[in-house]
Amino acid sequence: MTLSNSRKVRIEWGDCDPAGIIFYPRYFEIFDASTAALFERALGMTKFQQLKGFNFAGYPLARTRAKFIRPTRFGDDVTVDTGIKFGRASFEIEHRLSLAGEICVECSETRVWVVRDPATGGIKSQPVPHDVLAKFR
Amino acid sequence: MTLSNSRKVRIEWGDCDPAGIIFYPRYFEIFDASTAALFERALGMTKFQQLKGFNFAGYPLARTRAKFIRPTRFGDDVTVDTGIKFGRASFEIEHRLSLAGEICVECSETRVWVVRDPATGGIKSQPVPHDVLAKFR
Amino acid sequence: MTLSNSRKVRIEWGDCDPAGIIFYPRYFEIFDASTAALFERALGMTKFQQLKGFNFAGYPLARTRAKFIRPTRFGDDVTVDTGIKFGRASFEIEHRLSLAGEICVECSETRVWVVRDPATGGIKSQPVPHDVLAKFR
Amino acid sequence: MTLSNSRKVRIEWGDCDPAGIIFYPRYFEIFDASTAALFERALGMTKFQQLKGFNFAGYPLARTRAKFIRPTRFGDDVTVDTGIKFGRASFEIEHRLSLAGEICVECSETRVWVVRDPATGGIKSQPVPHDVLAKFR
Repeated sequence: MTLSNSRKVRIEWGDCDPAGIIFYPRYFEIFDASTAALFERALGMTKFQQLKGFNFAGYPLARTRAKFIRPTRFGDDVTVDTGIKFGRASFEIEHRLSLAGEICVECSETRVWVVRDPATGGIKSQPVPHDVLAKFR
Repeated sequence: MTLSNSRKVRIEWGDCDPAGIIFYPRYFEIFDASTAALFERALGMTKFQQLKGFNFAGYPLARTRAKFIRPTRFGDDVTVDTGIKFGRASFEIEHRLSLAGEICVECSETRVWVVRDPATGGIKSQPVPHDVLAKFR
Repeated sequence: MTLSNSRKVRIEWGDCDPAGIIFYPRYFEIFDASTAALFERALGMTKFQQLKGFNFAGYPLARTRAKFIRPTRFGDDVTVDTGIKFGRASFEIEHRLSLAGEICVECSETRVWVVRDPATGGIKSQPVPHDVLAKFR
Repeated sequence: MTLSNSRKVRIEWGDCDPAGIIFYPRYFEIFDASTAALFERALGMTKFQQLKGFNFAGYPLARTRAKFIRPTRFGDDVTVDTGIKFGRASFEIEHRLSLAGEICVECSETRVWVVRDPATGGIKSQPVPHDVLAKFR
């Protein structure tokens, strides 16, 4: 069983569209920040510090899938529960966004760990380092 | 075979993150606007005019799935090709975002057609009206 | 002397641009939410509840002026202090965003109070109601 | 007299808030892209190419002032006219956003030209280079 994280997020007026409910791309902003919060909790450092300390270039998204069950709107204080499962070359993040105990959105992300590639000047994926994995146990 | 639409979008500096590539929630903003552009082309009216003319309340997302194949960055002029397939109670939208002929992102959306529900003061889903369907053929 | 409010905001990865610092339109999202937080604190209700309870249509911006003194970046936990001064037909909001006690951004907003105008179907500005003013003292 | 630029922008559903009009931070995203478009036109290269070619680190904002005269809403195709005036250590950008010939927003920006500072590892402002200035005449 790996570490998980839970955080509260306020849905703001500016997150909502003319239908009065959240504009769904805002959920992905919330989920990206929730992934960062999980890593911050596990590693004990912010993403800024991680990028300096781990000589990596981030954990870009390969896939995402989301299911929108109930809308949320400005003034709602939602809870985002985030879990993680590590594979060999990638890892899976699960977010559950709920309001007053009712699930509103479920989202699964597949992310990869990338490092700078001196050979090309670009980036390349590589397995998540052992010392990172150890922090999640 | 139903109508499709293609449009060009410039990726802007402000769409990109500290890795220098697009922050992925921006793709969903682009896709939502691409869905609106498809409806606008088919119906010959903007979403604003549609909401007035069709007595409906939008076509909210039930699900979305996206696969990120190649990153894009500021200054890129990408092409978004959008197709649609109507089901009984919902419809599927497919977006393919490409740069210079190479696919960068594939996204599938499931959306429902909703109308105001006088009984509850909320909204309820209903089949896409025949006169809307006819415009896509 | 009127009520003021202070809140903490985390600057996120997705708020930042390829220079690695916050993309400045994100500050205005933060300030708009800070204005809403001040009203929520004064009135004891969320903006959603205010719109229902006060028969008004919001407090749109007439002007804004901002000075960017120091950049902020992802991982920064900034403080936003927000004050208000009521005039006859409008009101002034001042935001000071700081990091570890150092001012990063100063922003002044002029906003008006608007209500629905049954005569035109649109909105019109009117003085801030006395019962709203009373809540800020 | 220096170069100016004009471009069309579609206001999208997702740019608008529950009042049905544009959420004002979106205007600053539009203006930032309009500034980039002016530089792109003058220099004949995208901002991405500029950052590589001119050994600079961008033109961050020192101040901005905006006046909101008329609201815009989704489906509006607005025009943004952008002009520039160079000073010694900074430059002024003026944006006028209009709809069907009527001014909706006026915005003035003060920006500085910055380069990497090898001494500190940070950035520092310096006068706009002569070869950049020449391109605007």
